Amino acid sequence: MSSALHTDRYELTMLEAGLRDGTAHRRCVFELFARRLPGARRYGVVAGTGRLISLLRDFRFGDDELRFLRDEKVVDAATLRFLEDYRFSGTITGYREGELYFPGSPVLTVEGTFAEAVVLETLALSVLNHDSAVATAAARMSVAAGGRPLAEMGSRRAGEESAVAAARAAYIAGFSATSNLEAGRVWGIPTMGTAAHAWTLLHDSEEDAFRAQIDALGIGTTLLVDTYDTRAGVELAVRVAGTGLGGVRLDSGDLPVVAAQVRAQLDELGATGTRITVTSDLDEFAIAALAASPVDAYGVGTSVVTGSGAPTAGMVYKLVARQDAAGGWVPVAKASASKASTGGRKAAFRVCEDGTATAELITVSDGFEPLDTAAEHDDARPLQVTLVDAGDPDTAAEGPSGVRAARAHHARVREELPVRGLALSRSDPAIPTVFADAASRARRDQPARD
Amino acid sequence: MSSALHTDRYELTMLEAGLRDGTAHRRCVFELFARRLPGARRYGVVAGTGRLISLLRDFRFGDDELRFLRDEKVVDAATLRFLEDYRFSGTITGYREGELYFPGSPVLTVEGTFAEAVVLETLALSVLNHDSAVATAAARMSVAAGGRPLAEMGSRRAGEESAVAAARAAYIAGFSATSNLEAGRVWGIPTMGTAAHAWTLLHDSEEDAFRAQIDALGIGTTLLVDTYDTRAGVELAVRVAGTGLGGVRLDSGDLPVVAAQVRAQLDELGATGTRITVTSDLDEFAIAALAASPVDAYGVGTSVVTGSGAPTAGMVYKLVARQDAAGGWVPVAKASASKASTGGRKAAFRVCEDGTATAELITVSDGFEPLDTAAEHDDARPLQVTLVDAGDPDTAAEGPSGVRAARAHHARVREELPVRGLALSRSDPAIPTVFADAASRARRDQPARD
Repeated sequence: MSSALHTDRYELTMLEAGLRDGTAHRRCVFELFARRLPGARRYGVVAGTGRLISLLRDFRFGDDELRFLRDEKVVDAATLRFLEDYRFSGTITGYREGELYFPGSPVLTVEGTFAEAVVLETLALSVLNHDSAVATAAARMSVAAGGRPLAEMGSRRAGEESAVAAARAAYIAGFSATSNLEAGRVWGIPTMGTAAHAWTLLHDSEEDAFRAQIDALGIGTTLLVDTYDTRAGVELAVRVAGTGLGGVRLDSGDLPVVAAQVRAQLDELGATGTRITVTSDLDEFAIAALAASPVDAYGVGTSVVTGSGAPTAGMVYKLVARQDAAGGWVPVAKASASKASTGGRKAAFRVCEDGTATAELITVSDGFEPLDTAAEHDDARPLQVTLVDAGDPDTAAEGPSGVRAARAHHARVREELPVRGLALSRSDPAIPTVFADAASRARRDQPARD
Repeated sequence: MSSALHTDRYELTMLEAGLRDGTAHRRCVFELFARRLPGARRYGVVAGTGRLISLLRDFRFGDDELRFLRDEKVVDAATLRFLEDYRFSGTITGYREGELYFPGSPVLTVEGTFAEAVVLETLALSVLNHDSAVATAAARMSVAAGGRPLAEMGSRRAGEESAVAAARAAYIAGFSATSNLEAGRVWGIPTMGTAAHAWTLLHDSEEDAFRAQIDALGIGTTLLVDTYDTRAGVELAVRVAGTGLGGVRLDSGDLPVVAAQVRAQLDELGATGTRITVTSDLDEFAIAALAASPVDAYGVGTSVVTGSGAPTAGMVYKLVARQDAAGGWVPVAKASASKASTGGRKAAFRVCEDGTATAELITVSDGFEPLDTAAEHDDARPLQVTLVDAGDPDTAAEGPSGVRAARAHHARVREELPVRGLALSRSDPAIPTVFADAASRARRDQPARD
């Protein structure tokens, strides 16, 4: 499966024109970043990096792709010849998957000729925008859930392939499992799930359904008790399974009230070890509202796969530096109203004090080499790693092991945030983004006048 | 590529338990419908049907899928043997792709054994929920745009595969083109696009960039004029291309104001035939606000691919009828708070008066055969067609020709809506959903007492 036509037509149109006037061969630096955090959130979570690296391997124009471009006259013959041999040979640096990001963070930096870098715009943005939107929502839910486990079960509310990516992103951001079997197969994510209401309705009685489920799955299973009447369902569940019943699931009603009632009823019946899972229309706010309720686990669907109100991270892919005709490097930026960008190659550091993040420091170079001011800070963690080195992908970031590493990294860096930065309410980013360029550095380096 | 693991684990768990107690072989009717229209919209647009039919062909459990299920102990050996031979042999009826739907409309009806029908829940919902959400948003934009062409260019703000499906859904609902090349290749949708800001920034001057684009693409191309200063950009564009310039694109600023200024400037310069395309953060409301502006075409990104505030259609897949142990048919429904469903097999008709829709009539049968009350109405259009007939898919609904048919069907049925039903504001559905069952029909059939 080629990923090469996950591309907006204008990228190939620019390529054609650039091959014609020679500018397509100019070396360029493109940057992928977010101008702001959607929904006035406090932080974003980078996800999709490992998927993107794998998709880049398949970014080849094969017979099917070339035939389409030729038949539809999308590009001329010279451009077709270029695409036939296309293989990204540039370098991509970026934030580790699972890392936090803030407005202006250079989440991905793509270096290469204009020709090889411009065609990656759509694919890179599709993957990072979708996966980061889900991961950001998932991280907020994970914070709201405290230590209680969260399962992602929103596949049905997302496009079928995005559903797999969403399960992966949620797991990186702190979820513990998914209902999606393909996410289990491809990314090694633990899968979960026992029965739907259809299972109860299929049987001539709720008792038949519970008995059959326990016969097949044992008393450790979770019974869905709200198909008809929750109180009667709980009573029946314990009668059929005994007090060793693993769990009950509640998928409707006013959950704080129902969870308390069901816990009391289970305890009365002697099923004190039976766990309660709730799954009805949860988002980070509903989860937070259940913090004091006797709930053992959450299942989250729609809201996590749709980014809980922000289904895209809104990242953009902009040319920030390029060579001129003489080979010198020029920082570039557009001046469009409310969409201005900052030209120049960036380096990024998380500045911490006593282990708590205080700023996102982004240095801006006027040449090709990034400006390194990290040495000026006692505790400034460099945020960028090499993801593709002269065309060679970082295999450690791919596959299930990449997912596990990203999940561990996310858990680690989330600990650095100041406590107020974890709040769910709308506000400014948890830490300010501070830009530093060579000129401001030179000013700082001058001795004070007094 | 198998689609078989685009499945929630609980479907296979229920399958295992049902194979064990024999209920998996009971014949069932599942129904896919929406309880409400998200965002208090007036109508929904069905999309994804043709994609689903194709994905069903690939719903086979191959070596990779079976190995995963065995290694992870998801199901037992008997279930693995069942899945190895799995092929959907049931019948699916449903709304034509492009059709309008309302709360309770039986968008899809899946008949088969519990075993073969329950495993399709996630895939069917993923496809229909995503594509219908996009199509519904797109239809509202198409209404707002009047006769002006709309291009979908939101791939970068959606997962990479969902982006292709979104381009397809938007085209069905009235868009005229997409930026996404894969959607062009796979679904035959016209593609468009010329240049990004990066093209201008790549060059030593805006003039170099415009000249190179015109050299490659001719003066019929569209120049992006807002990289630095829009007024200077327009002046330069006409100076370089001449008054025969095809178009300019505006991607920033207060569009009603900027469009009027640019139109006046183009006319002053003699470029009276040069078209204006606007592309900055448009949704149906922004498009409506530009109705009186001199805009020739719209490009829509984020809002259309994310359903303009409703990224999922919120459809559910519910068991509504099944056989009992004796082979008789039983309508079934759950009674969960605020999630109650209506049991029984449905037939659906759009009731019209003088060509204008007045009601969504849904008849509810207490047996297997749907209840046909259409004959009681002068003008009741049956809404359901056979999509899969005893395992055999309707090939006419697949591929590019299926997309064209869906687009034509949508344009036709949208004309039936009452004018007030096309409004963008939040309100009740454009027409009421009326349920009729055998009992109410019998009551109607009795002669009046007087």
